[in-house]
Formats: sequence, C-alpha cells, structure tokens
Amino acid sequence: MSSSIRPALKAGAAAASKQQTPSVARAFSASASPLMKVRLERDTMGELEVPADKYYGCQTARSKMNFDICADTDRMPDAVIKAMGVLKKAAAVVNREFGLDARASDAIQQAAQEVIEGKLMDHFPLVVWQTGSGTQTNMNVNEVIANRAIEILGGELGSKKPVHPNDHVNKSQSSNDTFPTAMHIAAVTEINSRLVPALRDLRDAFQKKQDEFADIIKIGRTHLQDATPLTLGQEFSGYTQMLSNAIERIEATLPRLSQLAIGGTAVGTGLNTYTGFDTRMAAEISKISGYGFTPAPNKFEALAAHDALVEASGALNTLAVSLFKIASDIRLLGSGPRCGLGELQLPENEPGSSIMPGKVNPTQCESLTMLCAQVMGNHTAVTFGGANGHFELNVFKPMMIYNVLHSVRLLSDGCVSFRVNCVSGIKANEERINKLLHESLMLVTALNPHIGYDNAAAAAKKAHKEGTTLKEAAVALGSLNGEQFDQWVRPEEMLGPKDYKN
Amino acid sequence: MSSSIRPALKAGAAAASKQQTPSVARAFSASASPLMKVRLERDTMGELEVPADKYYGCQTARSKMNFDICADTDRMPDAVIKAMGVLKKAAAVVNREFGLDARASDAIQQAAQEVIEGKLMDHFPLVVWQTGSGTQTNMNVNEVIANRAIEILGGELGSKKPVHPNDHVNKSQSSNDTFPTAMHIAAVTEINSRLVPALRDLRDAFQKKQDEFADIIKIGRTHLQDATPLTLGQEFSGYTQMLSNAIERIEATLPRLSQLAIGGTAVGTGLNTYTGFDTRMAAEISKISGYGFTPAPNKFEALAAHDALVEASGALNTLAVSLFKIASDIRLLGSGPRCGLGELQLPENEPGSSIMPGKVNPTQCESLTMLCAQVMGNHTAVTFGGANGHFELNVFKPMMIYNVLHSVRLLSDGCVSFRVNCVSGIKANEERINKLLHESLMLVTALNPHIGYDNAAAAAKKAHKEGTTLKEAAVALGSLNGEQFDQWVRPEEMLGPKDYKN
Amino acid sequence: MSSSIRPALKAGAAAASKQQTPSVARAFSASASPLMKVRLERDTMGELEVPADKYYGCQTARSKMNFDICADTDRMPDAVIKAMGVLKKAAAVVNREFGLDARASDAIQQAAQEVIEGKLMDHFPLVVWQTGSGTQTNMNVNEVIANRAIEILGGELGSKKPVHPNDHVNKSQSSNDTFPTAMHIAAVTEINSRLVPALRDLRDAFQKKQDEFADIIKIGRTHLQDATPLTLGQEFSGYTQMLSNAIERIEATLPRLSQLAIGGTAVGTGLNTYTGFDTRMAAEISKISGYGFTPAPNKFEALAAHDALVEASGALNTLAVSLFKIASDIRLLGSGPRCGLGELQLPENEPGSSIMPGKVNPTQCESLTMLCAQVMGNHTAVTFGGANGHFELNVFKPMMIYNVLHSVRLLSDGCVSFRVNCVSGIKANEERINKLLHESLMLVTALNPHIGYDNAAAAAKKAHKEGTTLKEAAVALGSLNGEQFDQWVRPEEMLGPKDYKN
Amino acid sequence: MSSSIRPALKAGAAAASKQQTPSVARAFSASASPLMKVRLERDTMGELEVPADKYYGCQTARSKMNFDICADTDRMPDAVIKAMGVLKKAAAVVNREFGLDARASDAIQQAAQEVIEGKLMDHFPLVVWQTGSGTQTNMNVNEVIANRAIEILGGELGSKKPVHPNDHVNKSQSSNDTFPTAMHIAAVTEINSRLVPALRDLRDAFQKKQDEFADIIKIGRTHLQDATPLTLGQEFSGYTQMLSNAIERIEATLPRLSQLAIGGTAVGTGLNTYTGFDTRMAAEISKISGYGFTPAPNKFEALAAHDALVEASGALNTLAVSLFKIASDIRLLGSGPRCGLGELQLPENEPGSSIMPGKVNPTQCESLTMLCAQVMGNHTAVTFGGANGHFELNVFKPMMIYNVLHSVRLLSDGCVSFRVNCVSGIKANEERINKLLHESLMLVTALNPHIGYDNAAAAAKKAHKEGTTLKEAAVALGSLNGEQFDQWVRPEEMLGPKDYKN
Repeated sequence: MSSSIRPALKAGAAAASKQQTPSVARAFSASASPLMKVRLERDTMGELEVPADKYYGCQTARSKMNFDICADTDRMPDAVIKAMGVLKKAAAVVNREFGLDARASDAIQQAAQEVIEGKLMDHFPLVVWQTGSGTQTNMNVNEVIANRAIEILGGELGSKKPVHPNDHVNKSQSSNDTFPTAMHIAAVTEINSRLVPALRDLRDAFQKKQDEFADIIKIGRTHLQDATPLTLGQEFSGYTQMLSNAIERIEATLPRLSQLAIGGTAVGTGLNTYTGFDTRMAAEISKISGYGFTPAPNKFEALAAHDALVEASGALNTLAVSLFKIASDIRLLGSGPRCGLGELQLPENEPGSSIMPGKVNPTQCESLTMLCAQVMGNHTAVTFGGANGHFELNVFKPMMIYNVLHSVRLLSDGCVSFRVNCVSGIKANEERINKLLHESLMLVTALNPHIGYDNAAAAAKKAHKEGTTLKEAAVALGSLNGEQFDQWVRPEEMLGPKDYKN
Repeated sequence: MSSSIRPALKAGAAAASKQQTPSVARAFSASASPLMKVRLERDTMGELEVPADKYYGCQTARSKMNFDICADTDRMPDAVIKAMGVLKKAAAVVNREFGLDARASDAIQQAAQEVIEGKLMDHFPLVVWQTGSGTQTNMNVNEVIANRAIEILGGELGSKKPVHPNDHVNKSQSSNDTFPTAMHIAAVTEINSRLVPALRDLRDAFQKKQDEFADIIKIGRTHLQDATPLTLGQEFSGYTQMLSNAIERIEATLPRLSQLAIGGTAVGTGLNTYTGFDTRMAAEISKISGYGFTPAPNKFEALAAHDALVEASGALNTLAVSLFKIASDIRLLGSGPRCGLGELQLPENEPGSSIMPGKVNPTQCESLTMLCAQVMGNHTAVTFGGANGHFELNVFKPMMIYNVLHSVRLLSDGCVSFRVNCVSGIKANEERINKLLHESLMLVTALNPHIGYDNAAAAAKKAHKEGTTLKEAAVALGSLNGEQFDQWVRPEEMLGPKDYKN
Repeated sequence: MSSSIRPALKAGAAAASKQQTPSVARAFSASASPLMKVRLERDTMGELEVPADKYYGCQTARSKMNFDICADTDRMPDAVIKAMGVLKKAAAVVNREFGLDARASDAIQQAAQEVIEGKLMDHFPLVVWQTGSGTQTNMNVNEVIANRAIEILGGELGSKKPVHPNDHVNKSQSSNDTFPTAMHIAAVTEINSRLVPALRDLRDAFQKKQDEFADIIKIGRTHLQDATPLTLGQEFSGYTQMLSNAIERIEATLPRLSQLAIGGTAVGTGLNTYTGFDTRMAAEISKISGYGFTPAPNKFEALAAHDALVEASGALNTLAVSLFKIASDIRLLGSGPRCGLGELQLPENEPGSSIMPGKVNPTQCESLTMLCAQVMGNHTAVTFGGANGHFELNVFKPMMIYNVLHSVRLLSDGCVSFRVNCVSGIKANEERINKLLHESLMLVTALNPHIGYDNAAAAAKKAHKEGTTLKEAAVALGSLNGEQFDQWVRPEEMLGPKDYKN
Repeated sequence: MSSSIRPALKAGAAAASKQQTPSVARAFSASASPLMKVRLERDTMGELEVPADKYYGCQTARSKMNFDICADTDRMPDAVIKAMGVLKKAAAVVNREFGLDARASDAIQQAAQEVIEGKLMDHFPLVVWQTGSGTQTNMNVNEVIANRAIEILGGELGSKKPVHPNDHVNKSQSSNDTFPTAMHIAAVTEINSRLVPALRDLRDAFQKKQDEFADIIKIGRTHLQDATPLTLGQEFSGYTQMLSNAIERIEATLPRLSQLAIGGTAVGTGLNTYTGFDTRMAAEISKISGYGFTPAPNKFEALAAHDALVEASGALNTLAVSLFKIASDIRLLGSGPRCGLGELQLPENEPGSSIMPGKVNPTQCESLTMLCAQVMGNHTAVTFGGANGHFELNVFKPMMIYNVLHSVRLLSDGCVSFRVNCVSGIKANEERINKLLHESLMLVTALNPHIGYDNAAAAAKKAHKEGTTLKEAAVALGSLNGEQFDQWVRPEEMLGPKDYKN
C-alpha cells in the first residue's frame, strides 16, 4: 500500500456520506503530478502496483497488462458497467436476507449506486477483448465497489476489509452468472430507454408526413420503372408501417432477453447460492432498473448459450434492413436538383456547394445507411460468437454484448438524427411530382374503357416515340379531344380498389 | 400451334375429369422421340415455340432463354410453386364472387389443385435468378394453369380460350402482390409442416435423454477447463431449453409472416381489385392451406419490404446458432475413444475405420454444423436482399424466399436426421464419466469446511504436482483419512442451491 | 449379389472397350420395371442391398440412408465428382510406378475418364450434408470406379475383384487428402474454365461500350446529386477497370488454390505413401486437367485449414460487390422511361407491360444483383466453416466447396447472361442525356472566370428558384448574352485536368 | 471572432516556430474555466460559434451538431486523420509547383506535419457516421491545418487569411478524391507498420515452438477422434504455414491498395487539377509515408468503387479464420487439467481459481477468437458498403475504412498479445502426450504386417472392450509377446512417407 496519498484518501473517506462524490475519483481528476502515485494490491498470484487514484485492484491491473488490444477505443461499454452496478446493488440487498452484514450491505449499495450513476467510470479501464466470460470486468466491478465501500466505511484501500471483493460484493455469485445477467440488464435497458423511444418518435414523424402528403398524387415505381400512381402519403405509410412492425418485433424479443442467469453461479447448478436467491434477485433488479426481469427457467442454458442476444441482434438487423430501404428511397426521391427524381426536398444542413444552389447532399441518409451496414456486420459477429460456446459456458460474452449494445446505440442515435435533421423537414416538390405524374405514359390505362385498348396503346406508343405527352399524342391521333382526356385520365381514381357491382 | 401431337392432347383433354392425371404430363414422360415436338405460343412480343408436352407458354420460354443461370440446380423451390397453386385456387374461388365465369373458375381450381399436389412440377422450369419480382414464375403458373384448364375444358392449348392466363387466372392480381403472397404462404407452410414438428421431436428426444441421464454426475467444464460438477441430465436440460426457446421464437415471427400482400396489385393501392378482395383471399387461402392468414394491414409495406422474411430468417439463424452449439458439445463429449473426452458414445452409423474398433466419426454432428453454417450464410443473403428494395417494390424476392425455404428445409431435415441417427442413440459412458469426475481436483472445494482452505489447497496442489488423486494427496498429507474423504467429498451435494438457514 | 440382371451386365462387360458407354448406366436408363432390382454389397458393417443398376456400393448406400437432407436439391456438385475423376485417374497412373498392377491401373483410368466426362453422373447420389470430411463421396467415387473397372475387366460387380475400391482405387490415399485435393482441382478448373472467360468477355463488352460512348458528355452524379460532367465513356471506363481488377484479384488467389493436399493421407504425415508421390500426383493432375498444380508445401495445413478457399471466396465476394454496383448503376441510368433518369436504353427481352410502351424492366440487373447477394451469403458460410476446423482435419469440407463452386457458377453464368442480354445491347439516350446536361445548374462553374462568382451564383440561384435554364437566367440578369453563354459554358472543357502554365 | 482568448492565442502564435507545440492545443488542455470560450467562424451557410481553443471551423462544428451518433466511442480513426496529414503535406509540396504561394506551402506543411505526429488529435472530433463521402472530415482537416497555419504565420484564427482551408489547403483537391486517398494511405500504413510485423513475429514464435516440439510424438485427431500419430512439431508447422500464407495473401492485396484516387477531384475527371498532379502526389505521398504508392489508373473506379478495401478486408477475414482455428486448437489441447486433453500447458497469466491449482483459463485464446469474430462481422459491413455505391461516388467511405482499420488493429494487437502472453510460453505436457499416444488403439495398424489383420483387429477390439492397453490385449491373446510389441509398435515409424522399393 503506497502511503503518499493515503491521508488525503482517508480524509476523503472520513467525510463520506451518501451524497458525497467519490473521493478517489476526485483525487484522480485533481492529480497534477507527472509521477503516478501507486499502491500495492494483492491477489492469489501475488502483489501488483495499481494507480493510487483508482479504486480497482490486482485483477483489473493484470487484465490491463495482458490485453493491450485497441485499448484506446474498445472499452467495455458503459451500459455493461452500469448494469453491473444494478446487479451488485441488488445482490447487496438480497444477500442481507441471506446473511450479509448490514453495514457492508449499505456501503456496497452506496458504491454500486455510484457505478449506476456513472460517477466512477474512470475506474473501469478494461477492454472488450479480455477473457470470454467477462470475469475480469466482474472482478473490476467487485474491486471498485469493494474499495469504494471500504473508503465509505473508513477502511484502507486494498485491505479487503471490511468489504471483500469476492466474499462480500460477489457473494453467491460467479462471473459466469453475473456477466450474462449484466448483458441482459444492459440490453433491455438500452432497448427500452433509447431505441424504442427513438423508433416511436421516428414512426410518428413519418405518420405526420404521411398525413401531410395524403393528397399528393405521384407516379409509382416498380423495378425503378414508371408504374401506376399512388399518393405520396401512401408511399410514406409504408415507412410508418415498417417502423410499427420494427417496434413490435423488437419488443417480441424482450421476454427472453428479460430472463436472468443470476443464481446459476459457476456452471448453472447454483452451487453456493440459496434457494430463492434467483427469484429475489430478479425482483430486486426489476425494482432498481425499472424494467421487469424474471429468473431464467434453465440456468444451464442461460450460461452456455446466448441465443436471446442472437435473437435480439436479429431484430436489430431487421430494423437496419428497414431503415436502409427507407433512407435509400428518400435519398433517391430527393436526388437532383435538376437531373435526378427531385420529388422531395430534403433539409439543407450543411453547405452543399459554394456554386450550385439547391445542391443538398442527403447526408443524413448516408449516415443512416452506413450505420445500418454496421449493424448488419455486428450481427454477423454476434452470430459467430453465439454459435461457438462450449459445454457449460459461452466465452464470447464481451464481444456479443459489445456488438448488441453498439447496434442499439447506433440505431437509436441514428433514428433521432435522421428524424430531427431530415424526416421532419422533408418537403414535397409538388410541382415536380405533378409534372412527372402527367408526363407518365402509364396513365394511358385509364383510356382503355373509353377509346379501346388498341387506340390507347397507339397513343402511348406515339407519345413514347415522339417524346410528347400522352394527351398530345391521343389528341393528335383523333381518338379524343383535350377535354375528354382531362375528364377520363384521372389519377385520383387509381388509388384504391373499387366497390364491386355485379 | 404445331399439329403433330394435337390429336393426342385433345383426346386426353376429352377424357378430362377431376380424377385424371394430367395428360400433357403423361405425354411428356411417355415421349421417347429424339425430336422434341413443339407448339407455337404468343405473347405481346410475338410468337415462340414451346415444347408440345409442356403446359407453359411464351413468357416461361423467354425466361428460360434469358436466364440460363445455374439451370440444373437452382430451380424456383417447389414450395413456392405449390403456394402459388394455393393462391390461384383461392383466387378462382373468390373471383367467382367478383364476376369470374363459373366454368372457368372450376377448371382453374382443378388445375391449381394439381399444382398444389405437385403433379405438374415438370412444367415449372424457371430458375431463382430471374426477374426480381418473380413475375416470370407468376406467369409460368398462370400459363400452366390456363393451358391445363383449357385442356380440362376441351380447348386448344395456347389458344387462351376459354381460360386466359392474365384475364382469368391472374384476375385482380399482379405479380407484385401474388409473388410475395406465395412467399409468405410457402414460408408459413414449410415452417409449420416441417420445421416445428422436427424441432418438437428433437426437443422431446433431448428431454428423454435428460431424464435418462438425470442421475449421472459428471465434471462441469467452463472455458473448456474442469469446473464444478453437474449431472449429465442437467447438461442436456440446457439443450432441451434451447430447443423450446427456438420453437417459441420461430413461432413469434408467424404473426407478421401470416400477413398477405394480396389485394395490393401493382404498387400497393389495389388498383383493379374490389373492396374486400384481400379479406376474402386471406380467408380462402387459410381454408385451402390449413394455416391462418390475414390481409397485410398496409399493402405498400407488403410489396416494398420483406422485413417479415428477414425477421424469420433471423429466427432460423438463431436456431442454427443453437444447433451448432449443441452438435459441437456432443461431438466433443463423444471424442476419443481413448484420447478425447469420451463421456458419450454416439451411434455408429457407418464404418469408422477397418482397423480401429470404437472409432466412430461424429458424422451427424458434422452434417448438422455444416448446414447450420449454410443457414447463417443464407441469412446474410436474405439480409442483403431485404435492404436493397426501392420504392414500391423489392426486387430480391426470388432470392429471399429461396434462401428462407432452403434454411427451413436444411434445419428440418437436419433435425430429423440428427435425432434419428444420433441423439436417440446416445449412450453415456458412465465409467469414463465417473473416472473423470473423481480424478478432478475441483472437488477439493468440498473439503474447505472440514480441513480448512489452506490444507485443502495443499492437497490439491500436491495432487496436481504429483499426478495423483485428490484423495491420495489429502490422505498422504495427514489432513484426513480415506473414510473421511469419501464422506466429505460428495459431488451429489454440489448440484444445486441450498436452503438458507440463518 | 442379385442374379437377375447379371447376365446383361456381364454381356455389357464382355463388350467393354475404351469407347463403349458404361453398361450399367445404360441398363439403368433402359430399365422400365416398376420393381427395383438390387444386388448385395458388403462393407465392414455388413451387407446391404444397392440398386442393381448402380455402380456404387455399401458406403454410398449408407450415406444415402443416414443423410436424407435436401436430397432433391443439394447434391455434391458435379465439378467435385469430375475433379475426383481427375484425381483417381492420376493416382492410377502414378500408383503403377509404385506397384499397382498394370491391368487394374488401365481399367481404373478408363473408369475415371468416364467420371471426368460426366458419363456416370447418375451414380453419385450423395448430398453435401454428409460427413464433414467428404469421406462418403470419396468412397462413392472409389466404389463406382472399382465396380466399373471390374465390369471392364469382366468381373462381378460387388466382388471387389480384381479391383478393390480401397486397396486399388484409393491406394496411397485417404479421404482426408483426396477430398481437399478434389476441392482445389474443382475450384481452379471452374474458375479458369468458366469464370475468367466470362469476366474477360464482360470486361470487353464494357470496353466496347466505353469506346462507343466516348464522346457523349453527361451530368456526373455524386451523393446521387447533380455534379460536374463526364463522358458516358468515362463512366463506363470505371466498370471496365473494376472488371480488370476483378480478374487480377481472382487470379491472385490461384497460387494457393493450386496447391494440393494429396500425399498427406490421414493426418498430413503421408503415412502409407511413398516419397515423391505428392510431386508425381501434382504433375499428373496438371497433365490431365490442363491446369498447373503443385504439391502443398505443408500437408498439415492443407488438411486442417482451407484458408485458400476462404481467400478465393473473398475474391468472389469482391467481384459480387463490383457487379452489384455496376448493375445498380445501369438499372438507375435506365430507369423511366419518363419519370426516372432515362439516360440509357436497356434491351427489351420480355414483355414489359401490355399497356406501357417503353416499359422495360431491368430484369438482367435484378437477376445479377440477386445472385451477387447470394455470393455474399455463400461467403459468410465459407468463412464460418473455414474457422471451425479442429486439429488435423477441417470437417466443413463439402459445405465449403459447395458454396465456392456455387458462387463461381452463379458469377460465371450471371456475367454471361448480363453481357449477352443486357450490356451488349445498351444504347445511350443521347437526347435525354444532353437535355439533363444542359438543364443542370452546375455548369455555372464555367462562368466564374467570365462574369465573376457573385453574378454566376445569382444566375444559378435565379434558375433554381424559377425553374428555368441557367442560360435563360443568366441572360435575364444581363450578365451576358446567349452567344457568350454558349461560348463559355462548354462541358467538353470540364472533362480532364489542364496543363499547368505558370 | 471572440476576443477573450485572442491575446493568448496571438502570443502563442507570435512564438510559433517549427519546433513549438501547437498553442491552441496547449490552451485547450490548460483551460480551467467552466465557461467555454468561443469564437465565430463563417461558411456559406452563415456564422457559427466554435470553441476558442479548437482550430476547427464551421463545417466541423455543423457536423458535430448534425451527427450526434455514438459520439463518445466512434470517432474517425486516428489513422485516417494522420493519413490526411500526409496527403495535405504532400499537396502543399506539389501545389507549390503548380502555383501555391511558398509561405503558405511551408506553413501548411508544418501544420500537416503536426497532424501526422498526432499533436492535434483533439481537434478532430467528428464521428464515422457523418456524410458518406468523408467530406466533413476533409473539411475538418482543411480547417484545422488552415487555422494552425494561420497561427504559425501570425494571422487571426477564422480569418481564412493568409491560408484558406479550401483555396490553399484543399487546392486541386476534392473530398471525393482526398478521402479515398487517405483511406488507402491509412490502410497501407497500418497493414505495413502494425499487422505484417505482428504476423511475422507470431509466425516466428510458432516456428520456434515447431522446432522445440519436433521430437514429441503425439496422437493425431481427425473428426476430433483418435487417428494416426504425428509430432507436436508437425502439428505446429501447420500453424506456421497458415501464418506464412496469411502474410503472403495480405501483401497480395497491396498492389491495388497502393493506388491513389488523388487527381480525380469531384467525379474522377480531374477537373481543376493539372496534368501530372496525380503522379507527383503519389511520389510525394510515398516519400512522406515511407510506403510506395502509385496513381490509380482509372480515377472513376477509384472514387466510385472501393473494391480494393473489400479485397483487403477479405484477406483480413481469411486471417481471422486462420487465427480462430489456431486458437481453438490450442485451447482444446490445453483443456483440463485433468478432465480435458491436457497435452499443452498454457501460461498462467491471471488467477485461475483460488481453489483449483492448475486451473488456467485460456484467456488469450478467448480474446483472440472473440476479436476474430469481430473481424468477420466487420467484413460483412465492408462488403455491404462496398456494394452500395452509386454512379461517380461510393458514399460508405467512412464506415468502410473504419472497419478495415478496426480489423487491422484488432488483428495486430491480438497477434502481439497472443504471442507474448500465450504462444511463447506454451509448454508440452510430454507425460500426458505420451500416455495418450500409447493408450491409443490406432497403433494397432503397425501390427498388421506381423500378426495379420484379423489378429490385430482382435487385439484392438479386446482392448477397447476391456479398457486395457493394446499391448496387454495383444499379449493376452497370445499373438505376440511384450518385447515383440515394443519392437513392432513404433509410432516414430509412422510420421512420413516411405521410400518406395520395388
């Protein structure tokens, strides 16, 4: 134990109260010294120096040394750390019912709450590419909470007294059940708190546009070729429906995602836990997190397979597919301004070009389609990891949750950005839409009952060949006059099924 | 119209009754002539010779010429053709309510029934790699049913009288709504008739093994390393649970898969259909197929996006992940016979080796893991296709349904084969399991309360170093005697949580 | 041994000569009896009935029974069977140098030649989803060649005399080195004989269009938005370059694909072969196949890893990416006829619509993009299989080669179809191209040096706002006259870098 | 322009010299004020406040606002920013030859050098999920270098004088050619400087083990089942070969990766550049970076397609496949200590368990296999992005390079970690290896020539049935005596082909 910063730490600890900000964290950010102060920590492999201003201990330090892989970018996601905080707080509550000392329980709960609130994030330096069970992150959390609880209780960091990372913080738990539990808590929380609201807002934004565009009749396109007409509102209603479905199918994965592995301990048997521990934990975690969780009906499955994450990733993949299609359509409809389709005007968020007015790059569509591609890639990684577990433990856990959470975050942020910076500001270029609609040759369909198929076809062929409008061609052929054309060719009659009259 | 085989055909047609086997099909298989007989068919691009012994017409023939791509292997799946039969039969029923001639309706229904029963499969030669809307397969079906109905009614093949492929068979329909409707019918049918039963049977087979192995205690393995014990039944219970979940999550995709595009026609508006047509079609298709279908709430979504198939493919992908894990475990547990884990004996289905008795290659596991990898690959293709639709029509339809149906079939057949040829015959090698269990050092955990952690650890270290059993080491150290060891080290006490007594 | 068809077979065999067609095959296709005739074959697990008109034996029959998985669609690819024929023929030649009886060698060579020529394809009924080593296909080939050789030599089918499937046909070989050898032979052969020629032809077709379109100036598009001009020939030159690169990168994988596992036998050591066997085999296989092969420098790698196939699949995946982009561009450029971009006219291969003249669905583009998606999916499967080998043998062999060959075939056939039915017939819609070019506002760039940035921008903004041409706006603003506009705004000056003059 | 921190900045600027650390960067890190100081910057859309202590301007600020997507984790990779520095420095050198003011050129070069050295990394806040062309990062770089150059020259930040971000820093360039150029520079640099050395070291580490284990004979395993023997050195030689191949195939992608888009400007034509600019740029970039680059032969391809990145990603994917296989083997060979294969002892880097001595979790293998799965996922994303470019510009650029660089970094760091913390410390458990080898039944093969196949098989069957050694069984059957067994059963004779003697 290094002595140099001990007094300060103890002073900080002495003043500990539920409201205080954590003193080591404070010490750390205040540290201006070029020489890092250290203290000694110890585990079963021996002693190791750790930074004096960090709560973590030996096992965290070993992981940092042994897994120096994308250390600057690929940290274990914050959502996992916070979910671990939820879990450890719940365990402190429940374990009191199963013999944990009340004072230790209180201190652990307080420290865990700080983890939940993100106050201790600097103390979680580990990367995703560690042991495949997430053991090192579990120990990181145990070490940080234990030392922070020790501090709260006036003890000495690294002493493991009166709060021991394994015996108290990890009581009745194993990395093998805590980490998958945290995976599910994190996924459910992020999906519910970020993704579903973002999707609802985006769907509503499309619903609003659908209503706004209800009376704008436009050319339909199949195979990218001119087809029969529909309203712009009808076209947008497809997007609204896709997003409603997306919400439905993402929520359909929650029953299995809400099942928790906790109580399975090392191999799923629940060795070293007590009867009822799993049920109590699920209840307490539900209370703390605000989302409903249940104990996994079979803990062997819950440790060894992460099919629920693969399933959820599949729903995110489907959403990415939907958003890719929607963004591609909007980008194409907004292409131009002169030489594209030009039916929509997208919001101009950045300088397009210093020369060309009206040049608006569909940057939000580009961002969204890029991140959708990433979600599809993440899904491949999740699939691969899910398939390669062995026996009682899948050891692709950190990679799997990293990708699921990345996908959730990408889609959530992406939907917000797309809505705010693009969808809400989309305007219909009605003049252009109308021009294309009436230039189209497929309206000839409406003439069949009036002038017969052959005359109609002749008009269309003439117009196509000579590059004129259908009306010009039909009138020139003498099949009808202009008034008749306007009376008979009415796209507004082509927008839905007819009532049958026999 | 070629004349040479006309009389025979007419003769066949004259004898037409509901029970007859189709005469053209008969003509085809009976044909021994080296020179293919042909007849002329006609479409809007002109005339074309088609084989006289085939019911299909011009548009099918054009597709065959224009898409000579993997023609020998990649035919449009039978399940799609049969689903088209269901759809066309239903349309003939419903269209009668909306004006279709009763005699035409009857003949179409009869011809469609033959398609459903697979009697006309030789008349559907088109490949998956055709137009992305499946139009050519829709026309292939229209042509075959029309000509067969003409034959039933005593008409001349290719005459389009009294049954026209477009005007009658395709009445109130478009390829753009029929093909996606057939995709959903085929997927729902194959999932319900093949996959779910195969999964239930496999789950039951695992349940049976779980019960059979309930009392066999074995070493657990995490990180592939020795861990605390569990029963072989507990281990297998994880597999049972995985399959129960698989059934649940596959069935969770059916609500959206059961929605039908029919009634949307060309672009989703339902132009050229009648009010209520979609509802009647869904009802009739449900009746014919035996599975419940509903009209898609938004036809624009139903034509332009195939998210329901991407979602279903995601569930199949998750199942592939589960089966891959299970098969990998069983293969490893059966590895040996001497130099592997050797805990399971797998059925010996083929000669292993002419020299080594007991050499059993886990071929069923290999087959299953290979096809799981294929399902994952198919899922990537489906994802890619789903994302790349434009505007009113996704044009990756044939590729998407081809892969979904391939995955369903692979998994269905694979589960049956794995169950029958492997799982049902698995035997536990109890001697080996018991030997490994008792050689394991991790049982030392049970001594902690009796001789203290330090003495327990010393025994374990001594045993590890000297390669002896734990018992030998502990007795040699004088910590306990053999009887005490046998009394205290009881794996059967390590299989679940304890009741808490404070 | 069933007797009923023996005389016929023997008669057939008696007449055997190098030129004869195989008699069993003939017997089979001539068979009209409803009751299948059988004979008994025997392996180390006992006796089994096999169809009398098939050359295969017990192990093939067992595989058929044990792996009833997609039996109607997923047969082991013909190219693998033929490559096996090449291998077995080469082995018969080389083994004579190492002690094989000359008469047996000759008969094996003759039978193998028939396999190479595809004459015996009906005798290879096994599916891809068999044992992961391909052992069953190796034995299928051994059995067929042995029985056919026996027949040639006047022996009795199933007697294993005078040609034994293992001792003679498989001499100095193991499934573990023959199957991966056949994988490489098949891949190299298909790539060289199908894919590379198809790619060269497609590249040449684009080169021709590039030349044809060299002087057609058109609007460029970035972000799908109007940008500075280029020629249509320049645009197509990008496609030509992509295909040249594709050929280069596919050929860059051949050095590793051309290394053969043969000589490694069971685990890579070469047990039961002779020094020099591998070198002689590579030479003989090169001679028979017409493509250069070398012995793998490390046989352990060659049996246990199939990285060369994963690498090749990666090159095919890259080609799929290229073709997807090209086909997407062409489809968009051909969109319309009135309401799309309409710059290209694609060949009309099928009836577009009975109503709308000019409606051409870009079906070849759709087919090509669908099959490109399939290649990407196949690549995922290959990747997954490649990663999951263990120790001395990867057991995803049939699945891996199935996908690689499927991708090669899809891309080969797809390139031919796309070239013949689309690219070669593409025409530029010069009127439309010219109209769009001159309507475009970005030509304003050319006015900067003449009327100043501010006046130029004002003209562009006015034109954009009022929907007029740039010329109209600029003239209306009084910045210049029409002649000056035509003199200064010259897209043909914007097509390349300028020479620097300081 | 905010005034508050101007004096300090100017003071800093006044002291500017080539050796100084950038003053704004210093100002930033020294800033203790809670209220962020700002200055006004301006672009064509108007004015915007930017942090006073940042060099970036309006367009960067707009991108930060408009793309708030995974802002804390998904920054544009450092390697891209540094590559941009290389590019901008080269452009400043080359542009002087084409008219750029010498003083501006010098200042730009100095600022760009600081970017290359990573001194300004805090000034590049943009995320990957921006515009798909990377325009905003190009402008970020232009703005930072311009302002830093202005500072060096004593000007006022934001004044765009005397160095303008567009006119000077971006001279003769477009985002559309600079960003793909930076993509290639970054990929080539990271591959050459990180990945290839890491691979060579890992290969050498395996070569060393291969030599060390050359004489240790062990059981081979195919299908995970006992097979004929090989040496542990032979087994490791496969890994060495896989890595040699990996280096070869990664380097085989460099010719196309080394081609640069620069000189193509907006659409590939090279508008606004000078003849020879591309060649000079490639030469200068080669000089600055130390790696050889050439001008892309076709700039249209170079902007619109990123097949070279897809190809490179394919090679990385293949490497991931190789490493996955190797790590899986080593993990399995090290499984145990008692109940697994136990042939290898892996280094113990962290506490395994506080109870079980010898429990070593194969954490390095787990980390490596996880990151390999990520690389496969990244490859899917790259593939998807590569396929979805349109016309003159692929707009998935940031996503594509992000994934390629992530994969390179994961594999590089992963190989170093795996080598240092695992491979170099692997020890053979010779006692265990020897025990398994001699327990194996497949050595019976060696007895065939001496006691005949039937007697040999009988011995093997007896040993298998009774669980004895082969020797015990053979001696008990009276086929031979113990001495004969030891003389005839010699695994060391089974390790390679024999010389042929006829």
